Amino acid sequence: MTYTAPVEQIEFILNKVVSFPQLAGTELFAEATPETTSAILTEAGKLAGEVIAPVNRAGDLTPAALENGKLRSSPGYADAFRALAEGGWIGVSANPEYGGMGLPQALNMAVNEMVASGCLALQLNPMLTQGQIEALEHHGSDELKSLYLPKLISGEWSGTMNLTEPQAGSDVGALTTKATRNDDGTYTVTGQKIFITWGDSDVTENVCHLVLARLPDGGQGTRGISLFMVPKFIPDADGNPGVANDLRVVSLEHKLGIHGSPTCVMSFEGAKGWLVGEEHKGMAAMFTMMNAARLGVGVQGVAQAEAALQQATEYAAERVQMGPIIRHPDVRRMLAESRAEVFAARAICLACATALDMARATGSDDWAARAALLTPIAKAYGTDIGIRVCDTAVQVHGGMGYIEETGAAQYLRDVRITAIYEGTNGIQAMDLVGRKLSDGGAAAMALLDEILDGAKAAQADQPELAEQVWQAAETLRETTLELLDRDLNERFAGAVPYLSAFSRVLGAAFHLLAALRGGNRALARVYITRILPHFAADLAAARADLADLEAIDEAVLLGRMAG
Amino acid sequence: MTYTAPVEQIEFILNKVVSFPQLAGTELFAEATPETTSAILTEAGKLAGEVIAPVNRAGDLTPAALENGKLRSSPGYADAFRALAEGGWIGVSANPEYGGMGLPQALNMAVNEMVASGCLALQLNPMLTQGQIEALEHHGSDELKSLYLPKLISGEWSGTMNLTEPQAGSDVGALTTKATRNDDGTYTVTGQKIFITWGDSDVTENVCHLVLARLPDGGQGTRGISLFMVPKFIPDADGNPGVANDLRVVSLEHKLGIHGSPTCVMSFEGAKGWLVGEEHKGMAAMFTMMNAARLGVGVQGVAQAEAALQQATEYAAERVQMGPIIRHPDVRRMLAESRAEVFAARAICLACATALDMARATGSDDWAARAALLTPIAKAYGTDIGIRVCDTAVQVHGGMGYIEETGAAQYLRDVRITAIYEGTNGIQAMDLVGRKLSDGGAAAMALLDEILDGAKAAQADQPELAEQVWQAAETLRETTLELLDRDLNERFAGAVPYLSAFSRVLGAAFHLLAALRGGNRALARVYITRILPHFAADLAAARADLADLEAIDEAVLLGRMAG
Repeated sequence: MTYTAPVEQIEFILNKVVSFPQLAGTELFAEATPETTSAILTEAGKLAGEVIAPVNRAGDLTPAALENGKLRSSPGYADAFRALAEGGWIGVSANPEYGGMGLPQALNMAVNEMVASGCLALQLNPMLTQGQIEALEHHGSDELKSLYLPKLISGEWSGTMNLTEPQAGSDVGALTTKATRNDDGTYTVTGQKIFITWGDSDVTENVCHLVLARLPDGGQGTRGISLFMVPKFIPDADGNPGVANDLRVVSLEHKLGIHGSPTCVMSFEGAKGWLVGEEHKGMAAMFTMMNAARLGVGVQGVAQAEAALQQATEYAAERVQMGPIIRHPDVRRMLAESRAEVFAARAICLACATALDMARATGSDDWAARAALLTPIAKAYGTDIGIRVCDTAVQVHGGMGYIEETGAAQYLRDVRITAIYEGTNGIQAMDLVGRKLSDGGAAAMALLDEILDGAKAAQADQPELAEQVWQAAETLRETTLELLDRDLNERFAGAVPYLSAFSRVLGAAFHLLAALRGGNRALARVYITRILPHFAADLAAARADLADLEAIDEAVLLGRMAG
Repeated sequence: MTYTAPVEQIEFILNKVVSFPQLAGTELFAEATPETTSAILTEAGKLAGEVIAPVNRAGDLTPAALENGKLRSSPGYADAFRALAEGGWIGVSANPEYGGMGLPQALNMAVNEMVASGCLALQLNPMLTQGQIEALEHHGSDELKSLYLPKLISGEWSGTMNLTEPQAGSDVGALTTKATRNDDGTYTVTGQKIFITWGDSDVTENVCHLVLARLPDGGQGTRGISLFMVPKFIPDADGNPGVANDLRVVSLEHKLGIHGSPTCVMSFEGAKGWLVGEEHKGMAAMFTMMNAARLGVGVQGVAQAEAALQQATEYAAERVQMGPIIRHPDVRRMLAESRAEVFAARAICLACATALDMARATGSDDWAARAALLTPIAKAYGTDIGIRVCDTAVQVHGGMGYIEETGAAQYLRDVRITAIYEGTNGIQAMDLVGRKLSDGGAAAMALLDEILDGAKAAQADQPELAEQVWQAAETLRETTLELLDRDLNERFAGAVPYLSAFSRVLGAAFHLLAALRGGNRALARVYITRILPHFAADLAAARADLADLEAIDEAVLLGRMAG
């Protein structure tokens, strides 16, 4: 199970396919030159392949565990994490004032992808810490910032997100964790949270929990929720971990995958907390963290797909059954389609990250709208193809793929969570057809216009492919306008296939661009002739009637009635 | 994790959708009346829900193990197996002369589906025994038949298939296990086999291995292979298990799922064997066993989908997040599409089984060709939707789906093997576009003509749905003719999407028929408007160029080169 970071493919996408080169022209990201980019990717790739990937299997075999109420992480994780932290890789896009590198998110996401290819369960720790860093940068007081940011960025401390409660999953507003005000300006937090990733850690000396809770005068639903920083150890006067806070890990979940990542039930038992942002406005801060995390999760899907695909390709090159199976047309089809999907999803993720960076560097609302539009697509498509490619990689291995020692099954088990956490892919799709089209479709139309222009420009060089992309984008444009006339519930019934169609069109557009700019033309043809065409059926499903879904009796769904 | 056998839905498909009612008109299956069918399904359904399903989780948590070289099966398996055997359920379609019920395979497959919904890992044992029964009925000597069949049919003994060797997976002809002739007419078998399901058993008193091996004068490849019965205990003069044969289980595999099913590395160390069929013609006998098993595996996919979907539907009805989530349009879409796919796959499997029965009852070559055509489709589509539905069921559970205690993840892990064993789904697709079209497409055209006629007949009642099915079948017919002009390698590159398109058209045709005959019309609309439309993209992929796949450098597939 070796992993070699796809440095050239990532560089190609950054430099030739997405708008990344524009970033070096901005004041904020002037340092993001091709040379720096190349050096960063090469170094991070080395770390991911040589230091992170080697601990991946151990985490699966020896899951994180609670021993006498304390977390014991998987073998080798502490050293691998230290190497990651010491390389400065947690703070690639963090503020240099607090020790970060101040580089674009696009570069950070490329690094994250490599680390997540190495070991998803471990990478979740820095990924959530990065989300916390961003939330504090945007919403924290100066005091919180100067106390926490340097420690988080250096990887001495790690961060978590505490949203979910047993009755409050997708419906965050249903949470019951309480906060009360103390005289000294701090707060007391009491309640139970579930599914808390890396809720405890022995690879960092402190664990900083951002906790959503309701103040006594907080109204019902999401509006009455506030956000608090609740550290495991309360920092002393020197900013070092002092006395233990009143919180504990109750238990760890036994999961399908990411065994090395402790998923905790957390109990806050009158724990001391500090307000982040304003009272009752915790959801805004949490959304900052969640949006970054959503793109990050899309990247995780790409990461696992990349690692699994590399392994499957190597296996296919070596396994002989009437010649190496990589020469069998059906095996080659599986590998080529998978590679084409990884390319497309990676381009979408990096385009989304670049849009975030451009928005930040230029203050442009258009770039911000582009980033907002692409976020749910990057999350859902990245993780959908993550699962699809990891599943195909198992299939390429035949019977060996079902044997755990091979490692292919671990990728499939690990990646499966990515379609669920940080908002299920269904929720991403509803975000796309709801909130993200609530501008009357302006952001979507702007993107589709660009794709249509790109297809026109490609017509001379790639007439057939360009025509297919143009037709698909035009049909997507028409369907988008049609959906805008429907009420939200009707849109929701077609949200997932609509997002799928949008992803295919975007992926095809990036492949077309790549083919024009020195990328692999056969790979573009594989995507456009074999994967893109499903967009039409996706759109048919997106337009299909909600009434049909509602007309099917629950007894029929349960299999207890024929008709 | 309760399972309620979908007796009504299965009866509806048998009586209204496939040709099952014709069977009662044949001499061979005169007993397969609606009353008998209903009684059998009800009884078997009760057993599956009340006796088999309750042991499913225990098998996952406490896998089969080797203890001092002997197999120790999972808790509760022995009792559950005994109930199954004593009910006569292993011999539903076996010859009454040896204790079977002599009922159609279609009914047997319906029973197998229920048992496999209850516990896939356990059901593998009787499924393979049934395959062995069929192989012996067709190819065994009278002596072998009278010795083994009563014991296998009663479930006192169980049967296995020994094909695979480390270097001989899909390429069976590469096997190296040797057989030599003894003076007494028996043979001596020596070699190692891998992936032997239920290669040992403590739920039966003997384990009968059918082993493929090569005689000294057996030529190379598949033509020089013979088949032998090699029992764990050599039957004594009274036909009871006597002295131990020279074979042993070397180790068990650690697998992604079906933990309760021991997957053995078997070592035959000069074991005594009896020839089944003729020397050097073992593959023919093995194919009898494999074809039955292929349909049986398709049924397993349907079975796991059914069980997982029932659980997800119950969860969705109970889980409240802004109302019960079953009322959320996207959750309802997931459940309804899954139910529509289960219906379609079940109809295809039961149509295939009915064709096998009609061929046997009437001696008709047309029915035999129909069964042969449908077998790879039933296997691949049944298991593809098996995986898809079990995956969707995890998604419906949200975060809870990723927690092993919920049980949803087990279905996904268990069902994953079905797309691999008994010939990967890629091999099924190649069988379809190769061997099964080698009649010049006659069997395929006959089936498509029936579908076209059916669509015409439905036009008055269901004009829109009928039109869509008609168009799809017509396009499939044209593409089939086009593929017949291509060489085999080119066909293979499009085999999987071609099989997918064929499955969708067939599934849609069965849904249309069901809608006309009192089935659920909304369910038919869901299939035809949301699932069928992907057939066009499947066919585009089936026609796409092999040259593109071959033009992509291995370095690009590995992610090590951009273009």
